[in-house]
Amino acid sequence: MKTVRVPVSDPYDVLIGPGLLPSLGDKVRSLCPKAARYVLVTDDNVGPCWAEVCTRSLQAAGLAGDVYTLPHGEASKTAGSLIEILNFAADRRMTRSDLFVALGGGMVGDLTGLASATFMRGVSYVQLPTSLLAAVDSSVGGKTAVDLPAGKNLMGAFWQPKLVLCDTDALSTLPPADFVSGCAEVIKMSVLFDEALFERLAGEGVDFDREAVIARSVALKRDVVAQDERDTGRRALLNLGHTLGHAVEACSDYALSHGQCVAIGMAAVCRAAAKYGFCSPDVPERVVTVLERFGLPTRTHIPFPALMDRMLSDKKRSGGAIGVVVPEAIGSCSVRPMDTRTAGAFMKAGL
Amino acid sequence: MKTVRVPVSDPYDVLIGPGLLPSLGDKVRSLCPKAARYVLVTDDNVGPCWAEVCTRSLQAAGLAGDVYTLPHGEASKTAGSLIEILNFAADRRMTRSDLFVALGGGMVGDLTGLASATFMRGVSYVQLPTSLLAAVDSSVGGKTAVDLPAGKNLMGAFWQPKLVLCDTDALSTLPPADFVSGCAEVIKMSVLFDEALFERLAGEGVDFDREAVIARSVALKRDVVAQDERDTGRRALLNLGHTLGHAVEACSDYALSHGQCVAIGMAAVCRAAAKYGFCSPDVPERVVTVLERFGLPTRTHIPFPALMDRMLSDKKRSGGAIGVVVPEAIGSCSVRPMDTRTAGAFMKAGL
Repeated sequence: MKTVRVPVSDPYDVLIGPGLLPSLGDKVRSLCPKAARYVLVTDDNVGPCWAEVCTRSLQAAGLAGDVYTLPHGEASKTAGSLIEILNFAADRRMTRSDLFVALGGGMVGDLTGLASATFMRGVSYVQLPTSLLAAVDSSVGGKTAVDLPAGKNLMGAFWQPKLVLCDTDALSTLPPADFVSGCAEVIKMSVLFDEALFERLAGEGVDFDREAVIARSVALKRDVVAQDERDTGRRALLNLGHTLGHAVEACSDYALSHGQCVAIGMAAVCRAAAKYGFCSPDVPERVVTVLERFGLPTRTHIPFPALMDRMLSDKKRSGGAIGVVVPEAIGSCSVRPMDTRTAGAFMKAGL
Repeated sequence: MKTVRVPVSDPYDVLIGPGLLPSLGDKVRSLCPKAARYVLVTDDNVGPCWAEVCTRSLQAAGLAGDVYTLPHGEASKTAGSLIEILNFAADRRMTRSDLFVALGGGMVGDLTGLASATFMRGVSYVQLPTSLLAAVDSSVGGKTAVDLPAGKNLMGAFWQPKLVLCDTDALSTLPPADFVSGCAEVIKMSVLFDEALFERLAGEGVDFDREAVIARSVALKRDVVAQDERDTGRRALLNLGHTLGHAVEACSDYALSHGQCVAIGMAAVCRAAAKYGFCSPDVPERVVTVLERFGLPTRTHIPFPALMDRMLSDKKRSGGAIGVVVPEAIGSCSVRPMDTRTAGAFMKAGL
């Protein structure tokens, strides 16, 4: 088992390894000694596989509680689901001293995190990520959210968990396509910060040592977040491949996974950076080779004007210039503010 | 004009005085220099009187925006209203740099505060309290909330405003009954912390100097909150008269105002404290005299068993013992943890 300590205002541990879920109850007991009840939130894919081992462990540790099961998929990540979970917890007389448990991927984690941030003005929660993406991405950073009709993640809060247990056994029940989608974020972290991790992924491919690679990826994200808890500066680096990636995701009507879109965005930005002389040509070559080894796409057939329209609409929302994350070498990137026109020409050069 | 600076993690000012609303735009401009848009939330009582002076001032300062008007009254303080306000802001392309403006009493302030806490994971907001209760109570402390079917304020967050403008002209359009209800909270603050303020209220009655008294009451609350931003200790004092008061409020089916119920609770606790020897008999005499001078009730006809049932149900929700706030003298109180039975006998002695 590996431990990554996240030093935010109220520090917590991310534990990564096999067989961790049965120890959930004891860990909650020692972290939340006053807790008497829990509400475990999960989805109808993950719940049938892993909810019972969790509730059995919590009950053995003297905690009573209930399971709230959502339909799987991003469509459940709504304000309506949030209110239902809060009412569910209130009806079961959950108090300020009790806790939520999030068992699932990013949707369950984001939604349960926001429920925890807003129930009685904030209660504890524990994350049990069961997807690679949730393990490496949403379990660090304290970003919680639900979608509104006008856009993704428009309602949310910053709220840190008390503990993240990433049981690598649970990842093994993940559909292979979802696992590969999560790999795109791990590859992204290596391109941003760690050439050695990049080389390891290039060498080991999809069968990489999960405990070691997830722990390294979480630690890299931890280092960024620790310097920028409220997302006002350095965290912008984490958007490598995302400006274009989000546009591809929206234009494909979410037929492509988040990881596939990030892969396309990352490949395009690397190619553009080489063309503009920000990095040497071997950067895009090496990145594309790794992405292809993982079965991730590096090109899109979506016409550029459609992508540009989408980027413009996202840009309007954020106000100001587009901060394009540009690689200078494998393991070293920088944010370059570009006006709309320059950013458009740059992205186009990489497609 | 008086200024009370609230030294929370991101300090802000509460300005109290006549004619403040026309200066709103300039103040927002200097506090939120990046803001381009606002959403002003108000209710159908306050909006027709005061929204225009606010929006004119904001527009003169170069801010564009929209007004969202709710039906007045606690029934609007729901998760449904919250989601509608967030969707309204998202549809109008409000960004992270923009702000909410809360123009109204406690309902509008609590709801708009929570919208600000959760829109895009937190944006700025300005409070313009138009009731005495909102001015002295909810404008300091950062408590935002909406009600859930299972109980009041069950969904919320701690989120501090950028500025509170308490325009005493706006208070003058408040119905007299609402003004008197707010007076109960001011009297409470004086019993808790400040005998000189108590004597002033006893002498001046309902025609007290609003600027001076509100500023003093806000400063007293500020001092408590500054020592206990997340409500884990000293803030419990602010519940003087509230344990019984909430029970009276619920048992009267909200036919009595919050202030009337707090007055009844405060009078009862003072009488009980004298009977138990925690304070001298002149404490309840003086408190009752002031409450009566303000036209506030000090007795209830609701039978004690009904009140006790309600207190027990509130107690279950909070877990553990009841912290009863007991006066030792005018201006000095303490929290005494009592088990249910003891607390019940104590309250009953004061009825």
